Amino acid sequence: MAHWLVKELTDLGATDIELKELGIQEDTKDLQLPPIVVARYGNDPAKKNILIYGHYDVQPAQLEDGWNTDPFTLVEKDDALYGRGATDDKGPVICWLNILQAHNELKLDIPVNLVFCFEGMEESGSLGLEGLIEKEKDAYFKGVDAVCISDNYWLGTKHPVLTYGVRGCNYYSITIEGPAADLHSGLFGGVVHEPMIDLSHLFAKLVSPSGEILIPGIQEMVATLTPEEDALYDNINFDLEGFEGNIGSKTIIHDNVKSALQARWRYPSLSIHGVEGAFYSPGAKTVIPAKVIGKFSIRTVPDIESAKLDQIVIKYVEEEFAKLGSKNKLKAELIHDGNYWVSNPHNWSFRAAARATKKVWGVDPDYTREGGSIPITLSFQDILKTSVILLPVGRGDDGAHSTNEKINVPNYIEGTKTLGSYLHYLAEEEKDA
Amino acid sequence: MAHWLVKELTDLGATDIELKELGIQEDTKDLQLPPIVVARYGNDPAKKNILIYGHYDVQPAQLEDGWNTDPFTLVEKDDALYGRGATDDKGPVICWLNILQAHNELKLDIPVNLVFCFEGMEESGSLGLEGLIEKEKDAYFKGVDAVCISDNYWLGTKHPVLTYGVRGCNYYSITIEGPAADLHSGLFGGVVHEPMIDLSHLFAKLVSPSGEILIPGIQEMVATLTPEEDALYDNINFDLEGFEGNIGSKTIIHDNVKSALQARWRYPSLSIHGVEGAFYSPGAKTVIPAKVIGKFSIRTVPDIESAKLDQIVIKYVEEEFAKLGSKNKLKAELIHDGNYWVSNPHNWSFRAAARATKKVWGVDPDYTREGGSIPITLSFQDILKTSVILLPVGRGDDGAHSTNEKINVPNYIEGTKTLGSYLHYLAEEEKDA
Repeated sequence: MAHWLVKELTDLGATDIELKELGIQEDTKDLQLPPIVVARYGNDPAKKNILIYGHYDVQPAQLEDGWNTDPFTLVEKDDALYGRGATDDKGPVICWLNILQAHNELKLDIPVNLVFCFEGMEESGSLGLEGLIEKEKDAYFKGVDAVCISDNYWLGTKHPVLTYGVRGCNYYSITIEGPAADLHSGLFGGVVHEPMIDLSHLFAKLVSPSGEILIPGIQEMVATLTPEEDALYDNINFDLEGFEGNIGSKTIIHDNVKSALQARWRYPSLSIHGVEGAFYSPGAKTVIPAKVIGKFSIRTVPDIESAKLDQIVIKYVEEEFAKLGSKNKLKAELIHDGNYWVSNPHNWSFRAAARATKKVWGVDPDYTREGGSIPITLSFQDILKTSVILLPVGRGDDGAHSTNEKINVPNYIEGTKTLGSYLHYLAEEEKDA
Repeated sequence: MAHWLVKELTDLGATDIELKELGIQEDTKDLQLPPIVVARYGNDPAKKNILIYGHYDVQPAQLEDGWNTDPFTLVEKDDALYGRGATDDKGPVICWLNILQAHNELKLDIPVNLVFCFEGMEESGSLGLEGLIEKEKDAYFKGVDAVCISDNYWLGTKHPVLTYGVRGCNYYSITIEGPAADLHSGLFGGVVHEPMIDLSHLFAKLVSPSGEILIPGIQEMVATLTPEEDALYDNINFDLEGFEGNIGSKTIIHDNVKSALQARWRYPSLSIHGVEGAFYSPGAKTVIPAKVIGKFSIRTVPDIESAKLDQIVIKYVEEEFAKLGSKNKLKAELIHDGNYWVSNPHNWSFRAAARATKKVWGVDPDYTREGGSIPITLSFQDILKTSVILLPVGRGDDGAHSTNEKINVPNYIEGTKTLGSYLHYLAEEEKDA
């Protein structure tokens, strides 16, 4: 993918194209990290410099997960494009390339200088990216005036949005180890401490069925909801019925829009993703798994401190495990983390994006936050000391990270226009003091 | 495998060889059940008729489960034969064939008539076998005087045993269904009821980390331990250290041999096997699984009634799910069951096996029960109204159902001799009244 991007960018007239190598992944012997592709388009000192971020890696996908078509073959059906990465984030990356192509073919000037930064580790904690931003802040990325990231989604399926906040994500594993090899449950059931039983008890201690995090000390770190912030949620056009329609079930925990959106955007949540090492196939295998690795993650929000969260979570899991009285061995650890981010939704970059949205879609955008983490948003903001905007192309029902991921053709086309127009309005807008 | 057995049996001089077809598996459209191979060796009305049971199917196995070598290629290493089925139950089936071969080559008479019955669904509840026994009880299986099954293991690694009881096994699934497709935990964490969270809570309600079944009404059905039965456990040569050595960890729940063996043989246990539908691979996928199927089973003992157990378990799971207050959908059901079995360890068949053991191994056998279910033991006993013996070949550390399953070469060789000698002593022993 990185080499494919280099070729496309070259053909489109980008310059200074480089593959920034990131070396070997930490704690591995020889696992080479995928390179970050950087490139420039335009280099006029009179113009503002806009950094465009995207990622060319995707979530895992297998046909047998429940895809209707091969996840790695793009299929157009019912005015939508299906395939892994269609919306997260290969689709939006292609939008940016299409903008260059359109300006080239129409011989139009792009009134800002573009600095592209496309990484390949976004779905695995953006390993190496923060280091690169730090390293290049006064070099390749010097003078960046604003950052635009198109790697999230509309709130629903009808109304375009601008996004000014994202939750963070701290992903943990609980490894419980008992016997040296899997055992026959007939021979050893009732005789040995079973790792999977221990893990089930720990899982049940993490979160309630209604989503309440049961680990003490986390809610206490969450910023208090002010009446002003609470009022922001009164004006968002959103309905729970449509939301339930999107997910295909009436299993929303909350009975009103405000609670649901606040749960999604400004409160932490804990999800249990699965178990590595246990029996996962169809059928009835009478096995006692010898070693299981439970996976869960916590979505973080202001003002949760990531390092303190890790400490609280790992200590809690260890304490709860001790209470079980099991002779198995436990190891709880952080797999990766990414901090939350919140911005000012009325700065010059957002104003340009709002004008672009109005121009292309004919409506004012909704201002949203995101549940999903895009941790590097914060890295760009903090290290480059610049404003970041999330300007999504896809819809809320695109199925990112899920089966049958898609992007609707109108979103692909109008989204490309919106991103392109944004660049033109950016040139017009006056930077905030 | 069935056809391979037919060929071997034919070459060895067996007669009346048939593939008993079992039709389509219930609740499937066109899934053909594997046939049961039946054959005779000898047909002298003056001789006793011994039914030999074995199975040619095996548990699932994949190299990536942790096998050191391809599970479906037999590998000899350190005086042991490694491969799926080495001990459960292809190895013992081959022992029987070797006995025919030895008698043929040595031109020795086998002093009993043999009736072979090799099935291919043992690892999946022996579907179709009970029906066949019922159908053939007055036909192919008419006049059977005793049944011998070699499909279990020594208690430890050094001392041969005869086995007079096995636990049953009722295998259950808990299906919890929420959204129509997997969701991104960033977008939906804290917003929807997560099936995997519900399942974790239900799992934790089934059994304690020390193996205590938490479902009320099951322990109440267990036969009271009499002082006489309790005393039987005083004479069994067994040590927990060696047992822990076998399993490769010090994770035995019990601190004394009697408690450990009673937990294994005469009390029920509940094991949690795994989850279908959740994230099971290495790495960190931020998914909310849309539908998960939890798998667990209960090992049953006298006097648990199987149907009543199902009723209690399913009602309990439904009640506990209702308490969770989740909007997801639950379905708890039995996948398959097999009853327990207990015999008289001093009848003529056991006496013959004890003499064979003494002859080949030079020691008296230990009398054991088994934790693992061999439900058809009971079917043979009840339908054919005959005595059944379990006469194992392999050792307690063979790793049946686990990775790196093996059979030690001495067990394979001496085990074959023991099974062969048993047939000779059976001819000598007088049937009990």
